[in-house]
Amino acid sequence: MTTATTTHRQHFASDNYAGMCPNAARWFQQANGSGHEPAYGEDRWTQRVSDALRELFQTDCDVYFVFNGTAANSLALASLCQSYHSVICTSVAHVETDECGGPEFFSNGSKLMLTEASSAAGKLGKLTPDAVEQLVTKRSDIHYPKPKVVSLTQATELGTVYTVEEVRAIAAIAKRRHLKLHMDGARFANAVATLGCHPSDITWRAGVDVLCFGGTKNGLPVGEAVVFFDRDLSEDFAYRVKQAGQLASKMRFISAPWLGLLEDDTWLLNARHANAMATRLHTAIKAVPGVEVLHPPEANAVFAKLPAAAATALRAEGWRFYEFIAGGGCRFMCAWDTPEAAVDAFAADIRSACAAALTGR
Amino acid sequence: MTTATTTHRQHFASDNYAGMCPNAARWFQQANGSGHEPAYGEDRWTQRVSDALRELFQTDCDVYFVFNGTAANSLALASLCQSYHSVICTSVAHVETDECGGPEFFSNGSKLMLTEASSAAGKLGKLTPDAVEQLVTKRSDIHYPKPKVVSLTQATELGTVYTVEEVRAIAAIAKRRHLKLHMDGARFANAVATLGCHPSDITWRAGVDVLCFGGTKNGLPVGEAVVFFDRDLSEDFAYRVKQAGQLASKMRFISAPWLGLLEDDTWLLNARHANAMATRLHTAIKAVPGVEVLHPPEANAVFAKLPAAAATALRAEGWRFYEFIAGGGCRFMCAWDTPEAAVDAFAADIRSACAAALTGR
Amino acid sequence: MTTATTTHRQHFASDNYAGMCPNAARWFQQANGSGHEPAYGEDRWTQRVSDALRELFQTDCDVYFVFNGTAANSLALASLCQSYHSVICTSVAHVETDECGGPEFFSNGSKLMLTEASSAAGKLGKLTPDAVEQLVTKRSDIHYPKPKVVSLTQATELGTVYTVEEVRAIAAIAKRRHLKLHMDGARFANAVATLGCHPSDITWRAGVDVLCFGGTKNGLPVGEAVVFFDRDLSEDFAYRVKQAGQLASKMRFISAPWLGLLEDDTWLLNARHANAMATRLHTAIKAVPGVEVLHPPEANAVFAKLPAAAATALRAEGWRFYEFIAGGGCRFMCAWDTPEAAVDAFAADIRSACAAALTGR
Amino acid sequence: MTTATTTHRQHFASDNYAGMCPNAARWFQQANGSGHEPAYGEDRWTQRVSDALRELFQTDCDVYFVFNGTAANSLALASLCQSYHSVICTSVAHVETDECGGPEFFSNGSKLMLTEASSAAGKLGKLTPDAVEQLVTKRSDIHYPKPKVVSLTQATELGTVYTVEEVRAIAAIAKRRHLKLHMDGARFANAVATLGCHPSDITWRAGVDVLCFGGTKNGLPVGEAVVFFDRDLSEDFAYRVKQAGQLASKMRFISAPWLGLLEDDTWLLNARHANAMATRLHTAIKAVPGVEVLHPPEANAVFAKLPAAAATALRAEGWRFYEFIAGGGCRFMCAWDTPEAAVDAFAADIRSACAAALTGR
Repeated sequence: MTTATTTHRQHFASDNYAGMCPNAARWFQQANGSGHEPAYGEDRWTQRVSDALRELFQTDCDVYFVFNGTAANSLALASLCQSYHSVICTSVAHVETDECGGPEFFSNGSKLMLTEASSAAGKLGKLTPDAVEQLVTKRSDIHYPKPKVVSLTQATELGTVYTVEEVRAIAAIAKRRHLKLHMDGARFANAVATLGCHPSDITWRAGVDVLCFGGTKNGLPVGEAVVFFDRDLSEDFAYRVKQAGQLASKMRFISAPWLGLLEDDTWLLNARHANAMATRLHTAIKAVPGVEVLHPPEANAVFAKLPAAAATALRAEGWRFYEFIAGGGCRFMCAWDTPEAAVDAFAADIRSACAAALTGR
Repeated sequence: MTTATTTHRQHFASDNYAGMCPNAARWFQQANGSGHEPAYGEDRWTQRVSDALRELFQTDCDVYFVFNGTAANSLALASLCQSYHSVICTSVAHVETDECGGPEFFSNGSKLMLTEASSAAGKLGKLTPDAVEQLVTKRSDIHYPKPKVVSLTQATELGTVYTVEEVRAIAAIAKRRHLKLHMDGARFANAVATLGCHPSDITWRAGVDVLCFGGTKNGLPVGEAVVFFDRDLSEDFAYRVKQAGQLASKMRFISAPWLGLLEDDTWLLNARHANAMATRLHTAIKAVPGVEVLHPPEANAVFAKLPAAAATALRAEGWRFYEFIAGGGCRFMCAWDTPEAAVDAFAADIRSACAAALTGR
Repeated sequence: MTTATTTHRQHFASDNYAGMCPNAARWFQQANGSGHEPAYGEDRWTQRVSDALRELFQTDCDVYFVFNGTAANSLALASLCQSYHSVICTSVAHVETDECGGPEFFSNGSKLMLTEASSAAGKLGKLTPDAVEQLVTKRSDIHYPKPKVVSLTQATELGTVYTVEEVRAIAAIAKRRHLKLHMDGARFANAVATLGCHPSDITWRAGVDVLCFGGTKNGLPVGEAVVFFDRDLSEDFAYRVKQAGQLASKMRFISAPWLGLLEDDTWLLNARHANAMATRLHTAIKAVPGVEVLHPPEANAVFAKLPAAAATALRAEGWRFYEFIAGGGCRFMCAWDTPEAAVDAFAADIRSACAAALTGR
Repeated sequence: MTTATTTHRQHFASDNYAGMCPNAARWFQQANGSGHEPAYGEDRWTQRVSDALRELFQTDCDVYFVFNGTAANSLALASLCQSYHSVICTSVAHVETDECGGPEFFSNGSKLMLTEASSAAGKLGKLTPDAVEQLVTKRSDIHYPKPKVVSLTQATELGTVYTVEEVRAIAAIAKRRHLKLHMDGARFANAVATLGCHPSDITWRAGVDVLCFGGTKNGLPVGEAVVFFDRDLSEDFAYRVKQAGQLASKMRFISAPWLGLLEDDTWLLNARHANAMATRLHTAIKAVPGVEVLHPPEANAVFAKLPAAAATALRAEGWRFYEFIAGGGCRFMCAWDTPEAAVDAFAADIRSACAAALTGR
């Protein structure tokens, strides 16, 4: 067993256990230094970050800052559908499993239609054009909500990443069926880092209408950006944000840190590091007897089944991690600040715990 | 005219133009320094601040942290009434005039019933027991929403402060009519500073069921606390907060700065300073020809009518301030960090502008 | 005093105290006679009535049948605005005073913005272009819901009728301000009967986007029609109706009686009779000492102030009527079936009651 | 093939294809005969029916009349849970499959949690205590809606009937888990007819909190009753009904026909007849080659798989029926007025169609 104390230990539970990255912290401080600033986004940073995001995506998109991912996704979806419409997503989608009915609440009742978890794509947490087509053609009567949106998560909740071609294919079926395409990008940076593509390639150039660009897991203290590539869809969205309690009065503290993420490609560097740590962990444990990795990591998480006794032992040693959403396994999540040493220490403990579990000690 | 540049000028538009106070900033930094911390309030600060607030109020209240005042008020009200109920408040209440229908949205349709603005109390932005009684007895049929909550703002939107006796009297009629009592305390600290009472005296000891305790205007970067003195009313409120997109994942950044406000009575000192600056401004301009102060400031704002030309001239010089909610006048708002020099410079410019306006130059 | 018994007395409280008119009853019976019929509007009458309404209005409008006026108005308004929008109407509008927050509920929070009741038009229960303009230009910031709809009631809640020119003028300002125009036509037939115009003249030809055409007060047992003249606005409205619990399974019982109203201009004859009875009542009481008629009736109601003792005496004799919405007076409402004898008996009792009240007996 | 014309044919699609039963029609007529009557339930029938229902159930329950089943279920559920709660039901529950998201809309976002359709009970459309327990213990964190209600349908959507013991067992687990128990009784009469028990035995005596008692399918033209056995749960429910557009102004036309159902046990006789017709159809076709009856009918529907060509042929002959909810089979639904001759003709046509399909003609 390692001798690391459990205090201040880097955990593998969630990338939102991490703090603020230095660049974000610097801009946060700078925003405070200026004394009085107009509120509600009329400050000197908010416009600047919005422009920087437009530049990043190489298109004249509409940008709004909200407090967290549940709000970003829920408000985006609510702007794409009415209460009697439905949203197609996977059964492991964050909007389904971890937002406490936020999408239904903000839309005043829209239903989520879930694809089968047991298919090959489902096991990777992905939608496919066929799965979308199947759901959209399942019913056509007015006694069931009419599908209006496809929501995909990039990177997915199972640590995989849609290729550009996969997104394009889903966008094609969405367009043919008159569905809008929403991308939950809580870990969008991790996906771009993996794909090595331009951020526009995996979003509007591939057919995405609205992106919820995650800042929190990428190194911000608080805040996500909702990016409308189809600007017709963002009509009066500022009112929606305000009414929903998502307009920060001291907006500069939400927006300025984004400048820290965007300068010098910090967002990508943060994501690449997190991804590399997941790969490092995967490499270290994939051959460990008792460990069954579900699929190779494509972003910043490793999903693996461990002997129950091993998982229990690791927790007893102070490690924190989640049983993953679909049940029965473990999720090991790396962050922008996960040190190599923590990965190595955790891998060593996994090895010991599995050995002990298998030998029945 | 003063020679102050408009850049970095301290404004009198809103107390949310101010930044973070040093104590809040220190704790914010400290929260970041610790590396990984559990999310969603499981960190080491959130529990501590909650306990500190219970100690502050000398009662075992339930405490929840949300992102802003619209959310705090809307969620609190939604927990006190159903969609077919109504909320009694003044016509200048923030929940009515500045939350873009947030209370109606979060409650799924509750109506706000407004007291007359033209009464003596109305001109001071206050509810009275009689006004509440009048509204609650106006209708008793099912064709109009049933009154269920009284919402008062302390300090009020017109810069006045309810006395302990006034709150008690409203609470008495509320209790008799089976109404819950909500206090919008966006500037609660300013009211306590003015009254010199214990915070419990003006809240639960006076009959308040739920307080939205404003942190943002008091020196936080972001965040308000919803304090349930009647704990029966907060059943499952954590779910409500989560569903509504108001649960911070990196909660420590929202909660830790509250420790900065609470240590060494910083919240009170901040409020006292803001109040003092309003008094200083009032003293400086009340006798200026052309200036008609509406009522002496009791918190951190001065409400005054100025000659239209004077207001225009002041704006042209770079000063920012609001026309106040009820129309036709100006609101000059002071913050925790408003310097005496800024007050003096502003007062001087008001004097000059009024003189010029009256002489028709 | 008259000797009429209070049992089975025709009342003057509401036109929904009346039953079904013979033509409606005949078609209701006929619809039942056919045995099994497809549900949800696939029956042989629903399509036929929809076509008949299109013919009546001389345009290819979309028609939906719902159960009552609250639902008709609320669903129509919800289709015209989002939760962060507002609806401009008078302070006596049924949507404001008598639907228990239905519009706010169905729209998930839209606010009603009320015009002043004290203006000349306000006293007649009417909107004016100026009043609309004033409300729509009052605020332009995102902290208050954005006006999106004008809702007028035709005939009004105060028994007056908008002229074609008045509707056109309101429609013009609505169009210029990008507002949709909704007409609450709970007593639409009474208005058309008064104006003597073609139903299209006062609706789509005057700029109305959606009409809620009242059937209940005109002689149906249950049911109103929502008529979309701008068919773009009714996209997926059938889903909205279904989700909101307003789609009748045995639709024939809702739709078939409309054929009874539409055949031989029954709807107009019913309305003309009700209007004539109001005129008869007005003629009989306008000169009675103690009676102060507020304005001459233009539809099927008389609004008058009576000595308090007289109103009490009339109630004691078994007459039912409402104090009218704006307070302090009486509303005497006539229906399609109000007999002349009932009007005469009621007028006689009013005369006696006023005389007694004035002489203090 | 039979020679019956398709016109006026009795269908087997839905029991809401049937008209009004004679007793209901008689009372409907009688309600109209009386001239003016107070509105909104103040008439002479509504109170009487409410009392009659209390007598029927042998308890002092609260009774409300609404227009249809979607509204009855949605309003009842909304009164039992908040937006961040969830409702446990089967995957074939009408509230899930055929109300277009009504429950989510009226509750402002409550999620439905579905039991597995593939279990033995699932195949019969039933909940079990174990299935409820599994769902209620699945999650206990605030990131997923908290279970608050169990909703069962009696008779079920698959034509089966819960025994008294089965309801009691579900109620026991509900009580232990602090869940309210809702019964969708669109075909409650058919269930009581099958069980031969007292209506109280299968409702409040078994632990049901709220029953939606279906009138439409039992022979009414329009209308369902929401019956609260736990009167604490119906606080302000009248306001909820009004706001939701479910309060009939001419209430007598909704309530009076219920007197027709209740007199001389008409509701039971109607249900018994429908059930008997389903049994007759089952008997006639169960042994027909090609027909695979899924389970013996316990209420008024037969669920069976037919050769695809046979189903197509029957439709071509003018018979209407649904493919049943879970896919792949046919639902043959009998009504209070289905004649024996229609059953026999339909059975004969099924026999012919199957024979033709199997011989490939």
